[in-house]
Amino acid sequence: MEIVQSVRWSDDGRGIRILDQRELPAREVFRDLTTIDEVYDAIATLAVRGAPAIGIAGAMGVSLAFGGEELDHGHAILRVSRAAGRLKSARPTGVNLAWAVDRVVRAAVACRDPNRMYDAIRDEATKILDEDRAMCSQIGEHGAALIPDGARVLTHCNAGALATAGIGTALAAIYTAAQQGRRVQVYADETRPLLQGARLTAWELGRAGIPVTVLVDSAAASLMAEGEVDLVIVGADRIATNGDAANKIGTYALAIAARHHGIPFYVAAPTSTFDAATKSGNGILIEQRHSDEVRSAGGGRTAPIDVAVYNPAFDVTPAELITAIVNEHGVHRGPYDFSRSTA
Amino acid sequence: MEIVQSVRWSDDGRGIRILDQRELPAREVFRDLTTIDEVYDAIATLAVRGAPAIGIAGAMGVSLAFGGEELDHGHAILRVSRAAGRLKSARPTGVNLAWAVDRVVRAAVACRDPNRMYDAIRDEATKILDEDRAMCSQIGEHGAALIPDGARVLTHCNAGALATAGIGTALAAIYTAAQQGRRVQVYADETRPLLQGARLTAWELGRAGIPVTVLVDSAAASLMAEGEVDLVIVGADRIATNGDAANKIGTYALAIAARHHGIPFYVAAPTSTFDAATKSGNGILIEQRHSDEVRSAGGGRTAPIDVAVYNPAFDVTPAELITAIVNEHGVHRGPYDFSRSTA
Repeated sequence: MEIVQSVRWSDDGRGIRILDQRELPAREVFRDLTTIDEVYDAIATLAVRGAPAIGIAGAMGVSLAFGGEELDHGHAILRVSRAAGRLKSARPTGVNLAWAVDRVVRAAVACRDPNRMYDAIRDEATKILDEDRAMCSQIGEHGAALIPDGARVLTHCNAGALATAGIGTALAAIYTAAQQGRRVQVYADETRPLLQGARLTAWELGRAGIPVTVLVDSAAASLMAEGEVDLVIVGADRIATNGDAANKIGTYALAIAARHHGIPFYVAAPTSTFDAATKSGNGILIEQRHSDEVRSAGGGRTAPIDVAVYNPAFDVTPAELITAIVNEHGVHRGPYDFSRSTA
Repeated sequence: MEIVQSVRWSDDGRGIRILDQRELPAREVFRDLTTIDEVYDAIATLAVRGAPAIGIAGAMGVSLAFGGEELDHGHAILRVSRAAGRLKSARPTGVNLAWAVDRVVRAAVACRDPNRMYDAIRDEATKILDEDRAMCSQIGEHGAALIPDGARVLTHCNAGALATAGIGTALAAIYTAAQQGRRVQVYADETRPLLQGARLTAWELGRAGIPVTVLVDSAAASLMAEGEVDLVIVGADRIATNGDAANKIGTYALAIAARHHGIPFYVAAPTSTFDAATKSGNGILIEQRHSDEVRSAGGGRTAPIDVAVYNPAFDVTPAELITAIVNEHGVHRGPYDFSRSTA
């Protein structure tokens, strides 16, 4: 099974090879990014997306601050600091991006020899990338145990290889079950307004040879009523200590429909998504996004130009609707208590 | 309040004036159709849509078979028959279209004087139009009683003036409540894949001065959780004698979410929608539509070109999730028994 890798070092070792997600699903275009500006643009324009993948691209991008010239320690740190500031500003609200970039900056600062600073940054960025890949694989192992042979699995948005450096989170469970020889069939909600399910999840599963069917989000309940869905698995953007989970808008509606039909509803996410400072979903602020995302689709206008729009990026699924939460440490069932972050 | 009229006789009395719904929401274009071919094209290309509106346009269209010349009885009937056959073929599965066209044909046949046949057709078509307008108004009167002052009403698809010759069905309740002086605010699901909510419902409510907010279909549950929805009202395409209601895909998911949040869920439809021959939703065949509707949006491609698609046009909401069903005769509450068609 060939699972796409959305971000890695380029073959000559000097740049970053990304799959340009702006071109999907029409074209599979890999790009080698060799300057800070190119990495900035790739992140800002969503050529790279998904919190872990963005963080890794940013961290790797800091290494491009050096052009091979001799620098004293002070000038080297200045270069690194400028690069880090610029890269973090590409998606200012992305917690993961700042976290990963700051981590390579700390590795650079800890390195006293300016001639070895480039290697220190590369090593730390590679470590972040490897950790992410390992985390995805572990979530996959634990999650796969929830997916029986012949399962028909419904998912929402893209919590796959395209959002991480590894095999994803929710989709990791599906890939791993398939790699273990089980037959899995996936239903992918298209996921309005930005259509990550139709554009990205359908593409990466299809490329890996996993049967996938796309549907409009509002058809999921009807599919469940027909007995066509055995389980639902989705990712998460933030999980409170009581297990309430924020994820892409539409996740909550799915969880209600799954409960109504007696279908298991699983959430898969790394521990970095678990927020020990947030006690419940009430504490999660939901970002409202631009109205034009809803007033348009596929490049065309679809609603009156000045109509009011309700466009939350996420919703919160209460813990009581979640059958189990999977992270790299295992499968957790309610009542949840993630007050220790290494849950 | 100015509620749009989507189909009527044109001002000079010789043609049919329609609002061209292909141009919405970008432009408000009225067209006078003066030939059978023009009416055929308007129906076939969805310039006119909504079962009642299509039927009325078709019935009125039969009058265009005559150009003012003298005809004997046999030739006049031949003209009418050819026009009727052509118009009915514009949307071959539309039961309402065939029913309305056949009704004016019967009126023509019953008219022995070929010189008075044109008037007989016009009179019968006008009668169908007037009946539809009266039916909408009666549904509006009964439905408005369910909408309290200050209500925030969620609806799906377009069951409005754009689908009938009158003020609609579900939206008739909203218009009538507003005309009675009550403040009403509407949330309109965009209604993928064909976006009738975003394109049409948002447009016609905005034009009438009723505050309307558009959302992606999957955000409705989140809006309910926030306490922003007081009631849901939708139309129906077919209602079984036990009250199970087929309507645009996504209606069932809304009904489940409304029940989960304890919000009333109403269906409004004329008695012509009640099918005495269908005992329950199990007997309603759901049309599967073309995959490209889901693989594209707003004129652009949004999914892999060859991906499998699940694209049912309708879903069935079981009667137990429906708080009340409104038709032109009144408000009906469960357990429903519509085995007599004049429910």
